[in-house]
Amino acid sequence: MDIAARVMSVVRRTSTSEPSTSSDSNPQKVGKVMDVSDGAFIGGFIPSIVEKQRYPYTRPEFLYFSEEEITLSSDHTIRPVLCPRLPHRMPLYAGYAEVINAGKTIQNEDQASAKMLVLTQHQGAEMNGFSEEKKIESRSSNSAEIDDDPMLTPGGDESEKSTIFSLRADAALFSLFDGHAGSAVAVVASKCLHEHVKSRLCEVLDTLLHLDRQENLNFGKHRSESSYSMSKMNEEDEARIRSEHLVKGALETAFLDMDEQISQDKQVWRLPGGCAVISILVFLGKLYVANAGDCRAVMVTSDGTKALSKDLTPASERKRLQELAYRNPELIGNSFSRLEYSKKLTKKDLKSRVLYRDWFMDGWAVKTVKECDLRPPLISESSRKRRLLNTIGVSRGFGDHHLLTVDERLSIKPFLSAVPDITVTHLRDMNVLTDKDVVIVASDGLWDVLSNEDAGLIVRSTLGSTDSADSSRYTQAAQDLVAAARGQQASPNLKRWVLNSGGHASYDDITVFVIPLKYCAAPPADLEEEEDDEMLDLE
Amino acid sequence: MDIAARVMSVVRRTSTSEPSTSSDSNPQKVGKVMDVSDGAFIGGFIPSIVEKQRYPYTRPEFLYFSEEEITLSSDHTIRPVLCPRLPHRMPLYAGYAEVINAGKTIQNEDQASAKMLVLTQHQGAEMNGFSEEKKIESRSSNSAEIDDDPMLTPGGDESEKSTIFSLRADAALFSLFDGHAGSAVAVVASKCLHEHVKSRLCEVLDTLLHLDRQENLNFGKHRSESSYSMSKMNEEDEARIRSEHLVKGALETAFLDMDEQISQDKQVWRLPGGCAVISILVFLGKLYVANAGDCRAVMVTSDGTKALSKDLTPASERKRLQELAYRNPELIGNSFSRLEYSKKLTKKDLKSRVLYRDWFMDGWAVKTVKECDLRPPLISESSRKRRLLNTIGVSRGFGDHHLLTVDERLSIKPFLSAVPDITVTHLRDMNVLTDKDVVIVASDGLWDVLSNEDAGLIVRSTLGSTDSADSSRYTQAAQDLVAAARGQQASPNLKRWVLNSGGHASYDDITVFVIPLKYCAAPPADLEEEEDDEMLDLE
Repeated sequence: MDIAARVMSVVRRTSTSEPSTSSDSNPQKVGKVMDVSDGAFIGGFIPSIVEKQRYPYTRPEFLYFSEEEITLSSDHTIRPVLCPRLPHRMPLYAGYAEVINAGKTIQNEDQASAKMLVLTQHQGAEMNGFSEEKKIESRSSNSAEIDDDPMLTPGGDESEKSTIFSLRADAALFSLFDGHAGSAVAVVASKCLHEHVKSRLCEVLDTLLHLDRQENLNFGKHRSESSYSMSKMNEEDEARIRSEHLVKGALETAFLDMDEQISQDKQVWRLPGGCAVISILVFLGKLYVANAGDCRAVMVTSDGTKALSKDLTPASERKRLQELAYRNPELIGNSFSRLEYSKKLTKKDLKSRVLYRDWFMDGWAVKTVKECDLRPPLISESSRKRRLLNTIGVSRGFGDHHLLTVDERLSIKPFLSAVPDITVTHLRDMNVLTDKDVVIVASDGLWDVLSNEDAGLIVRSTLGSTDSADSSRYTQAAQDLVAAARGQQASPNLKRWVLNSGGHASYDDITVFVIPLKYCAAPPADLEEEEDDEMLDLE
Repeated sequence: MDIAARVMSVVRRTSTSEPSTSSDSNPQKVGKVMDVSDGAFIGGFIPSIVEKQRYPYTRPEFLYFSEEEITLSSDHTIRPVLCPRLPHRMPLYAGYAEVINAGKTIQNEDQASAKMLVLTQHQGAEMNGFSEEKKIESRSSNSAEIDDDPMLTPGGDESEKSTIFSLRADAALFSLFDGHAGSAVAVVASKCLHEHVKSRLCEVLDTLLHLDRQENLNFGKHRSESSYSMSKMNEEDEARIRSEHLVKGALETAFLDMDEQISQDKQVWRLPGGCAVISILVFLGKLYVANAGDCRAVMVTSDGTKALSKDLTPASERKRLQELAYRNPELIGNSFSRLEYSKKLTKKDLKSRVLYRDWFMDGWAVKTVKECDLRPPLISESSRKRRLLNTIGVSRGFGDHHLLTVDERLSIKPFLSAVPDITVTHLRDMNVLTDKDVVIVASDGLWDVLSNEDAGLIVRSTLGSTDSADSSRYTQAAQDLVAAARGQQASPNLKRWVLNSGGHASYDDITVFVIPLKYCAAPPADLEEEEDDEMLDLE
């Protein structure tokens, strides 16, 4: 099925209006990154001396789109719902769909990547390092002298000589990137983040696999027997270093690595703007959600829906942002007020009393309004989302290294964070998973108009009416989600998109993964066979 | 019953060994504050030029102890369990008991206060301020012109003209203070914190009462009808300012006020050391727990036990402390390493690899050990509790303004925080409360040896075997908790205290409130009558 046919099939399923004839009516096409100074809501930038792009605009690799198809897909008037050409070759049979915005930006600023990661331990210093660690452990426990055996890895422990220890493991990584002020940073991150994650996981792979094996062996045994503790620091069980801590550490450091790479790439390549990011790592029976922005992951099972991430925005991160301005007041100078007020203040409010919150407060207290309170607040209101420093609607993610406020030329990057919040779901502890249990991962384009519960109902409905042997069913679920959030055109020539319920539909880029939990807990056999050849072509 | 008799009754109930004859065998008595330089675990101080104490050492007011009784109570060899002389006059019939440590410090460094607060709105600027607020609210909603009526308080809203609005409300405040490096700061805080809380609550009382009444009236009504919103900032329901936000804000600012008062008092009075603090405020059908330290509040109902606070220590606050050192590296200079390591590092570990965590990490990653990693870590191990800057085992509370590290003379105060974490329990939403449902509030002396569950079982057992008409039953429950944690002397002349189970008992000061939830939700009539006269004598 070619792209046009696939697009049409979705449009027909969700819309009664006929799509307009071709994309020729829309001259704004792909091929160049939007200049950041065009982005009305973004402030000024330090002028870039470089104009070359390392990664030109594209759509996710796993879509297997041609240049022509990419152009065809960017029609803001039709807003075709796109999905992978080969859904059965998606990692873990994950479903995917996307749609471009209703004209807000020329390009789709969302990006995505889906990768199987083949992890192998680095050789050399890394091995010796962990040998050292292990050696001390052994010495202190049995006082036996152990020579500097370079092969003494945790897997080589005497108690496990009979088990063959393979320094290889497979993981799946799904990431969404929601760009702003251009798609450049989202594109780079979609090409590179998985390499940073892979590299960080490989650094600790032997220790990680050893801990995981011990944890599985000792599951249910007495605590003191199970304590392969890297640390004598704290005897409490919860303080023990477990395999999942090493995975979390790998994700946390990889996210900072990615942002640092962008900072350095900026010296050479044209990389305006930034992006929010969310990554889902499936590894050793656990599902990790690493979130730095306002994309969201929601688990849908027969028990209902459960958010696996918390939206990180200027509104939800008020205390962190205010504390930064409190400790480093030069960051906002005399241009902004750190406080949040219960209402927009004007000259008329001088000397009256107003409720406010400072960096340390969840509650509200009262103060008398002074001149300095009339400055724009650090976090301001706007029609849809609160803005940081009157400029940007996100507070985490990658990029934005040179972003300045329009008027005062204050640097915004110090307030932004590439640090992810991470949640861990133990798939093996869950009740028997069915093929209708999934994780939905989507950009805010979806969540702005659909509640977690609504999204869960749509997915369960689609999966309930498709054959469990159909490898494209999760992509169908993703399509249905995107189509529901995009809605339909009120009439062919009006640029109004409405939900089935009649409300405003999403005018933003919308991108969705639907990841089947069953295959996260136990990857399908054919996928595992494929991963060494064709699947890896995707990387 | 005099204090000796009360002490004996408790000792007999819990110990088979005879108490040693008198307190003469212990020459270390009360009457002067321990010099901070005597405190072995505390570092150096900026020498105090003032020696006078504003509040000399004492025990809580509600015990009604004479000087002689206070002296008698400080016997480290007997460790008598003390309780209020007049339990029926405790606010909300709350139970209380305390015991001194086993010789760690001369004085009992725990302090406590229990107060009924009669709140009345301040007159003058405050009223006008809220009038202004209200006026703008009214204008925007109905465009009617409203004159500058100084009496236009929220309570004077047209829709409520028929209700008589009284600017008076009652609250109960219970606070525990666990001092270190002397008892001076704990004593001052026990005398003054409630005044700061009262003052902050009075500042917003009219708005607070108005919101509370609106919330109760509109309980169950449609959201849009119930929106007396002080803010148009955010239309979401959870962003609306509610009465509990004003109470939280009052507690938050009052805690900082208290610490600021100590800072200023230090200029004039001798105020070494510091204290952890926890406050329980019962107000308008809600129970607020404001915690800044490692005291803990635990709710015990027929549904089980539930912690209402989280212990805040150098261990649990690692990320906050590390981030501070990251953003202000001069605070630790070259004397400490910001990172946490999986093991204690020595010269032998140079160039080997070790797991570490930095300020942004919940997980662990690997690094190669360098010279700078051999510095003492910001948060170090110790036998019982982790220490901040090798000096102090707490990370929040009041005081310690002049505390320096021993060797490097680095100031520790920048790392300490007086900001409370606050939880709110809506008592009216709970299932029917019985007279066995309580909140236990205790210093770490109790929680170091009793789990939340054990403490819950002890309280339920005591309350199950006492008459519900006995106003001293909650004090009996507190006594039983303290006696259980203190344990018994292994033999009369050995300074060893053991639990009934045979394990190590608590050698620390132990202080416990047992607050009956039933009377928090609906104060007993006789208490309300009393509060204007005798109860208020306590203030």
